[in-house]
Amino acid sequence: MKQYFKVDEWKIIEEGFDPHYNKVAESVFSLGNGRMGQRANFEEAYSGETLQGNYVAGVYYPDKTRVGWWKNGYPEYFAKVLNAANWIGIDVWIGEEQLDLAKCEVLSFRRELNMKEGYLKRNFTAKTDSGKGVEVESIRFCSMVDDECGAIKYTIAPLNFEGEITLTPFIDGDIVNKDSNYDEKFWDEVSKAIDADNGYVQLRTKKTGFEVATAMKFSIEQDGKPVSIHSNPIQKEKYIAAEVKLQAKQGQCITLTKYAANLSSQNHPAAELASLSADVLTLIASKGFDTMLAEQAAAWSEKWKHNDIIIEGDAAAQQGIRFNIFQLNQTYTGEDDRLNIGPKGFTGEKYGGSTYWDTEAYCVPFYLATADQKVARNLLLYRYKQLGKAIDNAKLLGFKDGAALYPMVTMDGTECHNEWEITFEEIHRNGAIAFAIFNYVRYTGDETYLTDYGLEVLIAISRFWAQRVNWSAERQQYVMLGVTGPNEYENNVNNNWYTSTIAVWCLKYTIQAIGKVKEANQAKYNDLVAKITFKEEQECEKFADIIGKMYFAHDDKLGIFLQQDGYMDKEQTLVKDLPATERPLVQKWSWDRILRSVFIKQADVLQGLYFFEDNYDIDTIRRNYDFYEPRTVHESSLSPCVHAILAAKLGDVERAYQFYLRTSRLDIDDYNNDTDDGCHITSMAGTWMAVVEGFGGMRVKDGTLSFNPLLPAEWGALSFQIGFRGILLNIRISREGVTVKNLSDTEMNIKIYGTDYLIDANSENLIKSKLAN
Amino acid sequence: MKQYFKVDEWKIIEEGFDPHYNKVAESVFSLGNGRMGQRANFEEAYSGETLQGNYVAGVYYPDKTRVGWWKNGYPEYFAKVLNAANWIGIDVWIGEEQLDLAKCEVLSFRRELNMKEGYLKRNFTAKTDSGKGVEVESIRFCSMVDDECGAIKYTIAPLNFEGEITLTPFIDGDIVNKDSNYDEKFWDEVSKAIDADNGYVQLRTKKTGFEVATAMKFSIEQDGKPVSIHSNPIQKEKYIAAEVKLQAKQGQCITLTKYAANLSSQNHPAAELASLSADVLTLIASKGFDTMLAEQAAAWSEKWKHNDIIIEGDAAAQQGIRFNIFQLNQTYTGEDDRLNIGPKGFTGEKYGGSTYWDTEAYCVPFYLATADQKVARNLLLYRYKQLGKAIDNAKLLGFKDGAALYPMVTMDGTECHNEWEITFEEIHRNGAIAFAIFNYVRYTGDETYLTDYGLEVLIAISRFWAQRVNWSAERQQYVMLGVTGPNEYENNVNNNWYTSTIAVWCLKYTIQAIGKVKEANQAKYNDLVAKITFKEEQECEKFADIIGKMYFAHDDKLGIFLQQDGYMDKEQTLVKDLPATERPLVQKWSWDRILRSVFIKQADVLQGLYFFEDNYDIDTIRRNYDFYEPRTVHESSLSPCVHAILAAKLGDVERAYQFYLRTSRLDIDDYNNDTDDGCHITSMAGTWMAVVEGFGGMRVKDGTLSFNPLLPAEWGALSFQIGFRGILLNIRISREGVTVKNLSDTEMNIKIYGTDYLIDANSENLIKSKLAN
Repeated sequence: MKQYFKVDEWKIIEEGFDPHYNKVAESVFSLGNGRMGQRANFEEAYSGETLQGNYVAGVYYPDKTRVGWWKNGYPEYFAKVLNAANWIGIDVWIGEEQLDLAKCEVLSFRRELNMKEGYLKRNFTAKTDSGKGVEVESIRFCSMVDDECGAIKYTIAPLNFEGEITLTPFIDGDIVNKDSNYDEKFWDEVSKAIDADNGYVQLRTKKTGFEVATAMKFSIEQDGKPVSIHSNPIQKEKYIAAEVKLQAKQGQCITLTKYAANLSSQNHPAAELASLSADVLTLIASKGFDTMLAEQAAAWSEKWKHNDIIIEGDAAAQQGIRFNIFQLNQTYTGEDDRLNIGPKGFTGEKYGGSTYWDTEAYCVPFYLATADQKVARNLLLYRYKQLGKAIDNAKLLGFKDGAALYPMVTMDGTECHNEWEITFEEIHRNGAIAFAIFNYVRYTGDETYLTDYGLEVLIAISRFWAQRVNWSAERQQYVMLGVTGPNEYENNVNNNWYTSTIAVWCLKYTIQAIGKVKEANQAKYNDLVAKITFKEEQECEKFADIIGKMYFAHDDKLGIFLQQDGYMDKEQTLVKDLPATERPLVQKWSWDRILRSVFIKQADVLQGLYFFEDNYDIDTIRRNYDFYEPRTVHESSLSPCVHAILAAKLGDVERAYQFYLRTSRLDIDDYNNDTDDGCHITSMAGTWMAVVEGFGGMRVKDGTLSFNPLLPAEWGALSFQIGFRGILLNIRISREGVTVKNLSDTEMNIKIYGTDYLIDANSENLIKSKLAN
Repeated sequence: MKQYFKVDEWKIIEEGFDPHYNKVAESVFSLGNGRMGQRANFEEAYSGETLQGNYVAGVYYPDKTRVGWWKNGYPEYFAKVLNAANWIGIDVWIGEEQLDLAKCEVLSFRRELNMKEGYLKRNFTAKTDSGKGVEVESIRFCSMVDDECGAIKYTIAPLNFEGEITLTPFIDGDIVNKDSNYDEKFWDEVSKAIDADNGYVQLRTKKTGFEVATAMKFSIEQDGKPVSIHSNPIQKEKYIAAEVKLQAKQGQCITLTKYAANLSSQNHPAAELASLSADVLTLIASKGFDTMLAEQAAAWSEKWKHNDIIIEGDAAAQQGIRFNIFQLNQTYTGEDDRLNIGPKGFTGEKYGGSTYWDTEAYCVPFYLATADQKVARNLLLYRYKQLGKAIDNAKLLGFKDGAALYPMVTMDGTECHNEWEITFEEIHRNGAIAFAIFNYVRYTGDETYLTDYGLEVLIAISRFWAQRVNWSAERQQYVMLGVTGPNEYENNVNNNWYTSTIAVWCLKYTIQAIGKVKEANQAKYNDLVAKITFKEEQECEKFADIIGKMYFAHDDKLGIFLQQDGYMDKEQTLVKDLPATERPLVQKWSWDRILRSVFIKQADVLQGLYFFEDNYDIDTIRRNYDFYEPRTVHESSLSPCVHAILAAKLGDVERAYQFYLRTSRLDIDDYNNDTDDGCHITSMAGTWMAVVEGFGGMRVKDGTLSFNPLLPAEWGALSFQIGFRGILLNIRISREGVTVKNLSDTEMNIKIYGTDYLIDANSENLIKSKLAN
């Protein structure tokens, strides 16, 4: 764990420049607005180590699958997140020398991500080989208000010379994707133009045919006065630029303001992208940079009103949680039900695809509590719209009659992952997608979703489970063979308890949902039955038979659920006995050794106990936690949060705090030495869960919000906002008690430590009970 | 199953030309002499579908591994069989038209592989676009006597014209490997030269630096008279040729005799390859083609004396078995202990590597009985020499203290396969390598091999097993987790019975061998102990503990051994219930579905019962056979032979015959639609086993050869040669009885149907007992 960045409650700050840490910093300082985003690359040239990254949401390329050995059922393509045109570029020449921090002497350097107002600021002074010093400040952001736009204010001043400075703002679409299977470039040029102070490049993705126009418009001031632009236009393949030569004087600043737009054919007619982008640029340029920045701050202020978590007395923890919330909001705003939350968001291109079960298991709870309910609903609708492809995917694997297997990784609904042990076997993802429907209805009370969309998905998923189990004549029970659970350090196991449990839960919930929908709207139910040829009696009978006769792996002696058949045959060593030199296992051990060991990558049985806690008494949960946690290496970023929540539930606030620390500063401190590729966006929602469901002890049951708070010894107080069915609450947990502020005009009932309270509209209530620690 | 080729007892015959079948024919008609080999490509140009293939034994290229997802422990490289310079090429122009059977009208076509004398002959008449007809005959072979050489006699005669015919014999080293991970060419040019009637190209492999000089020398006769050569020399990159223009007359033959040599730096100094190849060519050219061909026939006659199997009354079966024996002898002669038996031999480049466990499990028995014992010994020494790399390979996976895991696929001892479920888990290969040592000693009686080499390998393998098992506190037994058995339609299973059984057998045999070696040569034993730091007492105690406390999966109710834990949880369907449209499963079912099914790719429990039959009573073998065979899809070419042997043992001659048919004509009839890639060389040894161990019922026990013959109803008689400890026997099984001819000057004891017989030197004995069918 490094502590490279300065601790600050609202900012991430880099003081001084460490080229070896640049790619990590580029990830951490990433910007986004849900529609577009980028890594914190420099505007000027940089010949040192960097991963250039500009991304436009929803635009992807189906890269031809590459494997060592083909297995029947593998998808032909893997949808890759596309590196798009670079719109931030401003080439800077000081006389005959190019400004490049890898070649200059960097005298001072500071980079700052202002999370409160949503912008990135960079200041540096540098000296060229010939000794010319310059001072530079750049501020830029991806606008939350004009969400196809970004803006940069780039100011340069000579420190010790007078002479020519050349500024060349450009758009460069001739970029490579680091994550390309066959080293292809993914974009073709459609058109481009360059004028004195504006220009654009329009590109089209190969195969998928998405078009994106990336346009710029700029103005320059010198010593505070506008400069009329006499530029030299430059065109190359997929590239336009305008070169402007200026006579710089000591003590006088030159400021280039660059406005940029990324318009995609997903949202506009392809033929109009160029002209529309010119319109958009005219509009934002007329607003001006300062107005845009003020609007950005206001938009973020509104976000924080619903999102913020305040941790008093622990600035590092405070910075950590805000960073996570900030990045989640940059990645996904919920405006567009075609988009989803990629594992790297707009901070890198690794892994490809944009949608994993992370969305349902980790992100939905975050957006349910911190955003309008349509945001979580859009995440659900995304899967609803892809149901047809999930049915196709199941067909490819030999299932039939409308059974659906949602993909492990996807962009448009087709599977694009290709490791048999994951792609074909990690089928519990289907369960998480069903659980998210349950969770949404539980949280919002919006049962119409079941009628209109949810039930169709639930039946298709249950049909899959009904075909996926098989009858064991030996046991006289149904079994679930050949699966990989959430713990990916086991492959092709039989009767993974988590998978069997969530499968049976799906069947039960589907039967329940059928009842609800029939009651609510028999006509719509009849329509659905006809649409999907649902043989209710026969199929539900099969579901019920499986529910009644499913085998669940367990160990009666220990009183625990067994992760899978045969788990107790393993050598029962513990994580504490592993030498530090052998960790992380995934880097130090061969794969077969990992598979044979007891060691667990991430919550598996415990993931099930987290989802279905109401079905188990606290002693059962404790026995399983006490057994599995010491065997868990937490080598997935999704692991510590579930453990934090369970530790908190079991009253172990100190363990919960340790898990929280591990997850909240994962990227800021580059905990796993992999933040250079991008941040772990989806696990950031897990961090939020660790705070709100862990320390806050928040649950929803029978339509009522309840809290069972705990406070780590290290914290003075913890407060967070929760939106629930149109009401906004602020919960503050301190040693004095739990303060509940109702910020809405509606009263509501909540439970604190099991006791019911009526919280008046616009009231503040201190509840003193039970906070012992 | 096709019947494309004509049935003939000594030949494979293709009548008429079917371009769609050309690649299969190229495989089936392949030539080889253990040192070099080639597919049956045409001498003249062919623009139709073809897989060009010339191979030089022992020359390989380590192609950089290509996988979708890297797993720790994967090898960096995969040694590929290299397509080498094309030495057969003779470009033919008739006036301005190139002779190319894909473009001409083929009037007649006949290709014939003469297995008795070891050559390939092709006759055709064809007509060009302009209507010029030619008649061509080509005869070629890879010399068994001059094993770095091949020769071609190519005769062309005009049918209906007089005019210019241009013949351009060439050597072309600018070839591609079909099986290349990154579409690289694997050879660089070292040097070349071309003269009027001879020339060479010397090439060097990238990375491995093997050099091969491929040289040619030719002469031409017209109308039976030598033509003095006035040629036009041609040179291109990695290519040399000599163009000769001739005035052809109707009714006059032009004959080009091309001698070629492939000399490798494995056998000669690289700097001398060019001059040595010139010497070799001078030598063979002075012998002349007809003498060489006569020597070839004599060499094959000698092979057949020891190898031949005669099946009376069933020409298709006769052709099948001779084809298998012929290809095995073409692939490996046992002269060189650096070589081994690749799965495609010299008939294709698929799969890479040259050595699989096929060698030990299938090929060693064949060579033991049909060749000098040094041949099998060389196969064993090959592994002995690679022991160091097997220890390195085990280290890579986390094993220590001299434990060895032999590679799944290799060329030089390093692992070059990369699927975790095979590479890391199919560890039973270690057992087959130990078993081959046992088998060699059992057959030959040569116990010095144990002292000099065998024990060192056995201890290293036993050390692996001792570390690979783990103690199950639950069972209070040792278990073997995370393996893939011979049945590769199961991955990552626990307690595969075959693997556990052969592991424990290895430990037992190692302890036994230690005793023998100590008794035979204590000094050498002490040297070994010192060399490998063997702690006899402690390590043997561990071995014995595992032997005593190993868990073997079994089902007491059914009285069978269980292929692995949980096998009875599967849906117990049978192969007979599978629709034909769903087979072969590997092409029709997704991988996960295959894994979850009961269906077995190849003998697994039954492979163990075959190896260790003496440890089980016949009822146990029958119960397991009756249980597993109906679940076996035989989608490996290695499967039917073991089943044939067991069926014969159980007295079911009809089933044995069905299995035999399936294996013996696998390639001739392109049974699995995959012979276009090359023939299944190693399974051909299995076919031999099916005859000799199956119908012949041959076994060796306590130093005595025994037979328990059976005769399929379809056969009149079956006879085969067996070499045993210096004695050559001919065994003929007919309805009259078993005739044993001792072709040696030494008497010997054998057992027929359990009764001992003394077979006099140079005698023929008819034993009438028991042959009921």
